[in-house]
Amino acid sequence: MAHFQTYKLFGGSANPALAKAIAEYLNMPLVDCTIKKFTDGEVFVQGHENVRGADVFVLQPTCPPVNDNLMELLITIDGLKRASAERITAVVPYYGYARQEKKDAPREPITARLVADLIEVAGAHRVITMDLHAGAIQGFFNIPIDHMTSLGMFCDYLKQTDLTDCIVVAPDTGRAKAAEKMASLLELPMAVIHKHRPRQQEVEVTHIAGDLRGKRPLVFEDIVSTGKTLGYGVDAMLAAGALPDIRIAVTHALFTSDAIQRLDRPEISQIIITDTVPLPPDKQIDRITTLSVAPLMAEAIRRVHEGESLSELFSLVR
Amino acid sequence: MAHFQTYKLFGGSANPALAKAIAEYLNMPLVDCTIKKFTDGEVFVQGHENVRGADVFVLQPTCPPVNDNLMELLITIDGLKRASAERITAVVPYYGYARQEKKDAPREPITARLVADLIEVAGAHRVITMDLHAGAIQGFFNIPIDHMTSLGMFCDYLKQTDLTDCIVVAPDTGRAKAAEKMASLLELPMAVIHKHRPRQQEVEVTHIAGDLRGKRPLVFEDIVSTGKTLGYGVDAMLAAGALPDIRIAVTHALFTSDAIQRLDRPEISQIIITDTVPLPPDKQIDRITTLSVAPLMAEAIRRVHEGESLSELFSLVR
Amino acid sequence: MAHFQTYKLFGGSANPALAKAIAEYLNMPLVDCTIKKFTDGEVFVQGHENVRGADVFVLQPTCPPVNDNLMELLITIDGLKRASAERITAVVPYYGYARQEKKDAPREPITARLVADLIEVAGAHRVITMDLHAGAIQGFFNIPIDHMTSLGMFCDYLKQTDLTDCIVVAPDTGRAKAAEKMASLLELPMAVIHKHRPRQQEVEVTHIAGDLRGKRPLVFEDIVSTGKTLGYGVDAMLAAGALPDIRIAVTHALFTSDAIQRLDRPEISQIIITDTVPLPPDKQIDRITTLSVAPLMAEAIRRVHEGESLSELFSLVR
Amino acid sequence: MAHFQTYKLFGGSANPALAKAIAEYLNMPLVDCTIKKFTDGEVFVQGHENVRGADVFVLQPTCPPVNDNLMELLITIDGLKRASAERITAVVPYYGYARQEKKDAPREPITARLVADLIEVAGAHRVITMDLHAGAIQGFFNIPIDHMTSLGMFCDYLKQTDLTDCIVVAPDTGRAKAAEKMASLLELPMAVIHKHRPRQQEVEVTHIAGDLRGKRPLVFEDIVSTGKTLGYGVDAMLAAGALPDIRIAVTHALFTSDAIQRLDRPEISQIIITDTVPLPPDKQIDRITTLSVAPLMAEAIRRVHEGESLSELFSLVR
Amino acid sequence: MAHFQTYKLFGGSANPALAKAIAEYLNMPLVDCTIKKFTDGEVFVQGHENVRGADVFVLQPTCPPVNDNLMELLITIDGLKRASAERITAVVPYYGYARQEKKDAPREPITARLVADLIEVAGAHRVITMDLHAGAIQGFFNIPIDHMTSLGMFCDYLKQTDLTDCIVVAPDTGRAKAAEKMASLLELPMAVIHKHRPRQQEVEVTHIAGDLRGKRPLVFEDIVSTGKTLGYGVDAMLAAGALPDIRIAVTHALFTSDAIQRLDRPEISQIIITDTVPLPPDKQIDRITTLSVAPLMAEAIRRVHEGESLSELFSLVR
Amino acid sequence: MAHFQTYKLFGGSANPALAKAIAEYLNMPLVDCTIKKFTDGEVFVQGHENVRGADVFVLQPTCPPVNDNLMELLITIDGLKRASAERITAVVPYYGYARQEKKDAPREPITARLVADLIEVAGAHRVITMDLHAGAIQGFFNIPIDHMTSLGMFCDYLKQTDLTDCIVVAPDTGRAKAAEKMASLLELPMAVIHKHRPRQQEVEVTHIAGDLRGKRPLVFEDIVSTGKTLGYGVDAMLAAGALPDIRIAVTHALFTSDAIQRLDRPEISQIIITDTVPLPPDKQIDRITTLSVAPLMAEAIRRVHEGESLSELFSLVR
Repeated sequence: MAHFQTYKLFGGSANPALAKAIAEYLNMPLVDCTIKKFTDGEVFVQGHENVRGADVFVLQPTCPPVNDNLMELLITIDGLKRASAERITAVVPYYGYARQEKKDAPREPITARLVADLIEVAGAHRVITMDLHAGAIQGFFNIPIDHMTSLGMFCDYLKQTDLTDCIVVAPDTGRAKAAEKMASLLELPMAVIHKHRPRQQEVEVTHIAGDLRGKRPLVFEDIVSTGKTLGYGVDAMLAAGALPDIRIAVTHALFTSDAIQRLDRPEISQIIITDTVPLPPDKQIDRITTLSVAPLMAEAIRRVHEGESLSELFSLVR
Repeated sequence: MAHFQTYKLFGGSANPALAKAIAEYLNMPLVDCTIKKFTDGEVFVQGHENVRGADVFVLQPTCPPVNDNLMELLITIDGLKRASAERITAVVPYYGYARQEKKDAPREPITARLVADLIEVAGAHRVITMDLHAGAIQGFFNIPIDHMTSLGMFCDYLKQTDLTDCIVVAPDTGRAKAAEKMASLLELPMAVIHKHRPRQQEVEVTHIAGDLRGKRPLVFEDIVSTGKTLGYGVDAMLAAGALPDIRIAVTHALFTSDAIQRLDRPEISQIIITDTVPLPPDKQIDRITTLSVAPLMAEAIRRVHEGESLSELFSLVR
Repeated sequence: MAHFQTYKLFGGSANPALAKAIAEYLNMPLVDCTIKKFTDGEVFVQGHENVRGADVFVLQPTCPPVNDNLMELLITIDGLKRASAERITAVVPYYGYARQEKKDAPREPITARLVADLIEVAGAHRVITMDLHAGAIQGFFNIPIDHMTSLGMFCDYLKQTDLTDCIVVAPDTGRAKAAEKMASLLELPMAVIHKHRPRQQEVEVTHIAGDLRGKRPLVFEDIVSTGKTLGYGVDAMLAAGALPDIRIAVTHALFTSDAIQRLDRPEISQIIITDTVPLPPDKQIDRITTLSVAPLMAEAIRRVHEGESLSELFSLVR
Repeated sequence: MAHFQTYKLFGGSANPALAKAIAEYLNMPLVDCTIKKFTDGEVFVQGHENVRGADVFVLQPTCPPVNDNLMELLITIDGLKRASAERITAVVPYYGYARQEKKDAPREPITARLVADLIEVAGAHRVITMDLHAGAIQGFFNIPIDHMTSLGMFCDYLKQTDLTDCIVVAPDTGRAKAAEKMASLLELPMAVIHKHRPRQQEVEVTHIAGDLRGKRPLVFEDIVSTGKTLGYGVDAMLAAGALPDIRIAVTHALFTSDAIQRLDRPEISQIIITDTVPLPPDKQIDRITTLSVAPLMAEAIRRVHEGESLSELFSLVR
Repeated sequence: MAHFQTYKLFGGSANPALAKAIAEYLNMPLVDCTIKKFTDGEVFVQGHENVRGADVFVLQPTCPPVNDNLMELLITIDGLKRASAERITAVVPYYGYARQEKKDAPREPITARLVADLIEVAGAHRVITMDLHAGAIQGFFNIPIDHMTSLGMFCDYLKQTDLTDCIVVAPDTGRAKAAEKMASLLELPMAVIHKHRPRQQEVEVTHIAGDLRGKRPLVFEDIVSTGKTLGYGVDAMLAAGALPDIRIAVTHALFTSDAIQRLDRPEISQIIITDTVPLPPDKQIDRITTLSVAPLMAEAIRRVHEGESLSELFSLVR
Repeated sequence: MAHFQTYKLFGGSANPALAKAIAEYLNMPLVDCTIKKFTDGEVFVQGHENVRGADVFVLQPTCPPVNDNLMELLITIDGLKRASAERITAVVPYYGYARQEKKDAPREPITARLVADLIEVAGAHRVITMDLHAGAIQGFFNIPIDHMTSLGMFCDYLKQTDLTDCIVVAPDTGRAKAAEKMASLLELPMAVIHKHRPRQQEVEVTHIAGDLRGKRPLVFEDIVSTGKTLGYGVDAMLAAGALPDIRIAVTHALFTSDAIQRLDRPEISQIIITDTVPLPPDKQIDRITTLSVAPLMAEAIRRVHEGESLSELFSLVR
C-alpha cells in the first residue's frame, strides 16, 4: 500500500527456517535484529533498522517452548510499537494454547483468549494464523485476523495419490467438521472416532461411527503433541477392519515426548505434515512428508501489505 | 453475598413466562418497571425501584425479535448502571447470533463476538447463559460467564423412557461432540449425519456415518429455526434404515417459519424442548414435550448471588 | 486522500433511495453486498468486494425499525473491520434514540450515549450525521463526528417563498435555540410554545410566549413521530390568533402511527421535509414537499475522503 | 453500605466553606490531608488517613482557577486510587467547562467531554454534580452521575415571596426549557429573550418573545461569569415595559471581571445565588441573597453512601 | 474486609517454599489446585475450591524461568477472573524484566511496562511487590500496587553486627539513591562505583567516588544475576584500599550462570540475601545468610485483606 | 510521509519564542489559531486551518503555569482529534510533574503517570520530550515517545571550554547516573552529593562522595525550581575544597521564587541553560548562557514526520 514507507519482515527465533523461506519467496531480507536470552531467561529483542512508518510482519509461531516464544513475540511487538512502526502484523502460523479455548470444567482459564488479549495489548494491529484449533478463536480478537488453512494444500497433494478405497476418518468428534470438509473435497466417504466411558469403569473405550471394513483411512488432525490419542485411533481403526494403510495429515506437528515412537509403525503408511512448527532432524523419520506453508504465508503477507484480497488463497475450502 | 444491599430480578419482555417461573422459584417479586416501545420502535426501560448497591439479574433471552430483545437488554443494563446498581448480571438463556461465531467466508462479521462486546460495553458485569452454539463463545467475554447446559436435564428425562435399540445421532458434524456426550451418558452408540456436495452438482447430499438399521434415533440439537436441515436429516435416517420412531431434543426451539409443519410428521415420535425461548400456543403441538429450565436458571442465579459454587449444577456433564 | 487504496460506499437497507442518490451524486457504484434477515430475525451482512485498505462509508440512518437498522449498521461495521477496511465511517443522517440523551427521571437510561458506544465498539472510526436532537450528542463520541445541518437548506428554500407576516415558532422550549437561528437567518420575529401543568390538574396546557396575531407561523422541528405534540401546537397557534397558513419544516420525518392524519389539515399549508428517513408512498400527501439531503451528504463524504474542510458546507448556520 | 470499611469526605481547596458546611451537616470530620502548590505551580495532595476499603467523597467544584482546581481534583483521585480507596466519588457542585459541550464551529474542542474523560481516567467511580449547563453532559460519563438541581431550592424560596405580576424570563433561548420548568412550578407566565444579528450589521439585537408590560421578571440562569449578557437582558426587559423590579436566580455565581458592577443596579431588586462556587467577601453586595446547597449535597452524599434512592431529593423538578 | 466471602492464598510453582511460609504465618492453607505443564510446554492451572466472592492472593515471583512463571501467573489470574473471584491480587515479590524499564537505545522495548499491562489485562486488581529495580515501575500500573522494601530488614540485621569502619558502597550510579538511604539509616558514610569508557578503548574502567581506604564496604544491590558487575566492583573496592571484609546485601538473588563461583571468594565475608527467589540447595554456600520476607509479605497480605494501612510496615525507610 | 495530506505545527502559549524558532528552522508557518482564556480561567483553542488528514505537532512545554499549560495542551489535542487530524504529536520539551513519578510515601499520587494518561485520553498519538526527570516515565505511555536529551548539546558546548581540573558533580544521588554519562563523555572524574539526617536531628547534612579538593565542579541538573538544593550543594562543594569556579548546566530552568538570587553568586562562574522553558527577561542575568533546543526539536519533528530514524540525533549519549 502506497502509504507505508516500506514493509519489513521480522523473523523471530521460533522457526528460523520458515522465516527464511518466506523471506526468499518475497525476495526481501529479514530485518537485522538482536534476539537474546539472558542467563536469567529474560528475552531481549532490538531491531537494527529504522521501522518508522513501516508495515512490519513478525513471524513467530508460538510452538514449544511456547511461553518463551510467546513472550518474545510480545516483546518484539512492544519494541516495534515504541519504535513507531506504522502497522504491526503478528504472523503466527501455529497458535499455541489454542486447545484452551473454552471452559470444560469449573475454574478453568480460557488461555486462548488470554493470549489474544496479550497480543492486542502488546500493540499488534493484525494477525495472520493458520488452522486454529477452533474457528471461533478468530472472535477472540478485535483486530483483523487472516485465518489461513492447510486443507487446500493437503487435498492438492492427496489428489495426486491413489485414493481408491480411501475414507476420511475424523480422529475425534471435535474434528468431524474438518473431516467432512476434506471428504467433500476429495469426494470420499467419512467416519468418526468417538469415545465412551462405561459406567464404573476407568478406561475410555474408542468407537467408530461409520464402516471402515476394507478401507484405507485418511486422518486429518490439526495438532499432534504426544500422539497418544492418535495411537488409540489407529488401533481402533484397525480393529474396525481398516486396511493397514493409514495416512495421517497434520497441520501442526509438535511431536513432543515419544510421539515419533508412537507413530513410527508399519500400519501408518505416511504422515504428511507442514512446517508451521520446526521439526528437529532426529524426528524427521522416513514416513514423514513435509509440505511447506512458506508460499501460502508469504503470499498472504504480500497481499495484506498490498491490500489485495486473500479470498482466492483459500477459495476452495472453509 | 453480604455486601450487596439486596438482590433483584428484572424480567425483560422476551420471555415473561420464564421470568415469572424463575421469580416464583426464588420466591421473590420481579422488579416493578416500565418497558415500552414507542411508535418509532425505540425501546424505553425504566425501573421503579431503587437499585443502588443491589445485585441485579436481568432475564432476557435474545430470541426473535432478536434485535429488539438485544437492544432492550442493553438499554436495561445502561439504565441500571447509571442507577448505580452494584452488579449487573445478564441472564441470557438463549444467546442470539451464536451461529455467527467465526468467519466461514471472507468479509463475514463475527456477530457473536460483537454481541459480547455490546453487552460488556453497556455495563454488564457477568453473564449466565445456556448451551451456547459453540463453547468458545465463552471466550468472547472478558467478564465471567456461567455456561449452563440442558444436557443433564434431557438425559435425566430420557433415562426414564425406553432406550432399547436407541442410537444418538448428531444432526451434523458440528454437533458430533454433543452427541458423543449424550451417547456416553446414556451408554448408547452414536452416528453422525454429514453432507457432501458432489462436483458439478448443486444439491448437497446427506450421508450418515454409523449404522442406523433397526435403530430408534435420538437427535440432540441446540438450536432449531426453520427445521429444514432437521427435516433432511430425518429423511436420511429413515433412508438409512432407522425405525420411524425418532425423538428429537432441542434446547432452543425457535421454530420459525413453517418449522412446525416440517416437524409434525408421524416418524418423529417426540420433540423434547426447553422453555429458554417462548413457544406461542399455536405452535405447541402434541408431539412437543417441554422441560423447564426455570429451576436450573433460578438455582444458578441464587448461587451466583450467594457466592456458592455452580459446579454441582452440571457436574455430570460437559 | 492518497493513502487509501480507494473509497467505497455501502448502502444499508434502511434508506436505499438515499444511498442510490448519494452514489449517483458521487458517480460511484454502491458496494455489491448481501444483506439478509433470517427467519429468526438475525441480520447477516457480507460484502462481495475487497475492502482492504479502503476508506469505506456505510450509509444507514437508524430510523424505524430502529433496532434492526442499528444492528445491521453494527454488524456491517464489524464485518468491514474484520475485512481490514482502513477507515470506516458510519453515515447516519438520522440518529435514532437521540431523544434519550439525558436522564430526566431516576433510573432512566441514556440510550443516545449507549448507541454512540455501540458504534465505537463495533469499530467505526468516524461518524457523519445531521441535525442531532441535542448538539451535545457530538460529545458522546470520542471519534470525530461531522454534524451536518439542514437549516441552510430549509432557509434557502424558504427565502424563495413569500415570507410576509411570517414568524418563526419554536414548537417547544427545547427548540427555542433552533428557532432563534432560523429567525435570525430569515430576519423574522419568533415565538416559543411552552407547556404548563396547573396544580391538581391532569392535562398540560399549551401556551405561547410571543405575539402571533395575524402572523403566518413557520415551525422548525427536528424529529416528528406521531405528530401529536405538533398537533397541539397548531391548535394553540390558531387560538393565539395565528393565520391558518402554518408551514412546518421537519428534518427527520418519521411520521409514525397516524401522524399523517394529524398533520393533513387545511390550516397547515405546507410540510417541508428531508429524505434522511424514507417516507412510504402512501404517506406522501400533497401537502408535503421533500428536499433531498443527498447532495449535502455526498459532498460531506467526498470531502471527508479527500481531507477537505467541511466548514463551508454549513458556514452560514450553526 | 455495609461493605465499605467506612466513608470519608475530602475537602479540596476550591470551596473550603462548602466542604466544612457539608462535613458539619454529616457530622463527620474532613479527611486530614496536605494540599500544596509548589513554587512552579505543581499541585501535590496527600492524605494522612488510611483509606483502604473506604468510600471516599472528594468535594471540589471546578470553579476559577478552573485548571488548578481540576488538576487538584484529578491528582487527589489518582492518589486515592493508588491508596486503595474502594470507591471514589467526585463531588463537583459546579462543573467547569460545561459551556464547551458541543461544537458550534469547525475545529472546536468539546472540553466538557474531555473533562469527563479526565475524571474517569484518573479513577473516579462516580460523580455528583448540580445544574449542568446541558443535561446531556450526563451522557459524557460512563460512570454513574447524580445530577442534582437547585430549581427546587429556588422555587421554595421564591414561593415565600410576593409573586404578584411576576413572569419567568429565560435569559436566552438555551435557557427556555429551564424557564418553562420554573414557570410551571410557580404557575407563572414566561417569556424568552432571543437575539438576532441583522444583515450587514455588526451588533446583535436583543428581542423578547412574550409580553413583559407591567410585569416583574424572574430570571433563572445557571452560570453567570461577567454578567454582560445578563446586563443586556435587563436593558431589553426594561425596554419591553417590565417593571424595574427584576429578580435574578443564579446557581453558579462566578461573577468574574466586573460582573458585580454590572449587576449592582437599582432595577435589579435581588440576586439569589447558591454557594456551589465561593464568592469573595468584597463581592458580597447587599443585593445578593445566598442559599446554601450544603444540605442538599450532604444528603446526596449520605444517600449515595447508604445506597438509598436520591429520587425524592428532586422529585418535584426535572 | 467484611464484604468478601473469604480470602484465599494461591501458591504458584515459582517459589513453593515462600508460599508455604506465608501460608503458615497467616495460619491458612494454600488453595488446593492443579498446576501442570504439558509436554508441549503449555501451562494449565485449575483451582479445586470455589472462589466466588473471594479475595484471592496469588503468590508468584517472576524469577527464572521467567516466561513460564509469568505465563503461569497470567493464566492463574484469568482462571480466577472467570471463576468469579471478587478481587485478585498478584503477589510478585520479585518482578522479572524490571531492568527493561526504559529505552536506553533506539528500538528497545520497555518490557517492564509490557509486563504490567499483561498483568492488568489478565484481570489482576492489585499487585504487591518488593524492591522494584526502579520505583517508577509503580507508575506502569493503573491498579494499586503495594511496593514493599527489604531495606528495613537488612538494616535491622546489620545493626546487630559490628559496623565499625563500615561504608555503604553503591555498586553503580543507578543504586546511589538506595545506598544513600542505607547509609542514612545506618549513619555511615557512602561511596559510589561508576564507570567510564575511555576514548578509542573497548573496555570500561571502574572508578569509585568516595574514599574506601581502610573501610569495610557494605554493598546493597537489588538484583544479582551472573554477579559479573559485582565482581568487578569488588576488585575496584579492594584496589581503592578497602579492607577484604566486604559484605553484600541482595534482595533478589537470582545467582544465574556461575554467579556463585564469582562471589565465593574470601574478600567477601558475607552475602545476605532474601528468599523472594528460591535458591537451589547446591547454591546455598556458607557465605550466604538468608533473611525471609515471608513475615513481611504475609503481613502485607493480611493488611490488604483487612483494609489496614501498610504504612507502618515500611515507615522507617523509602 | 507520503500518506499525510501535509504537516502542521501548532504553537501553544507556553513558549512562543521556542515555537517561532522551531517554525523558522522548519521553514513553515505556525498554524493560525485562537487561544484565549476567559475571565473565569477557562481555556479555549480553535484552529483556523483545515487539519483533516494532517500530521500535526503541538508544541507546548508544561512549564509554569503548569496546570493552565497542560489543560491548553489537552484541549488543543481534543480539538484536533475532533477536527480529524490524522496524527497528533504532543511536543513537550519540558514535562511538568515529572518529579512525581513514584510513590515515596503512602497515599501519594503518581502524577507523572496521570499526566501521561491525560495526554493519551485526550487523543495524542505520540509524544516528543526531552530529559525526563526519570527515564522510566517513557514507560508511562503506551504511545510512542521520542525522548531527546540535551546532554550532547551541553557536552559539545563544554568541550569548547577549558576543562582543566574539572570534575563532574552529581547534585544528588538521583542524578549520579546522569553525572556518570557526562563524566564519561568529557573524560572527567566525578563525585556525588548525598544527604544524611542524623538521628534525633532535624536538619539534613549534605556530604560528598569523591574528592573535590582543587577541582572546578561541573554540575548537571535536569530541573531547577527554587535553586535551594543547588545552593546547599554549592556550599558543600566549596566546603569540600572545590575551587570557587563552579559551572552549572540545567536543562529545564524553571527558576521560580528567588532562584536567581540564590544562584547569582560569584562562586558560580556560569549557568548554562536551554530554552525548553521561557525565562523572563528580568531573570536573564549575565551569568546565564542559553543554548537553544530549537534545532534539535525541529529536526526531531521533521524526522518523525518523514519517518526517518532519530537515532543519530542522540547516538553519542544515553
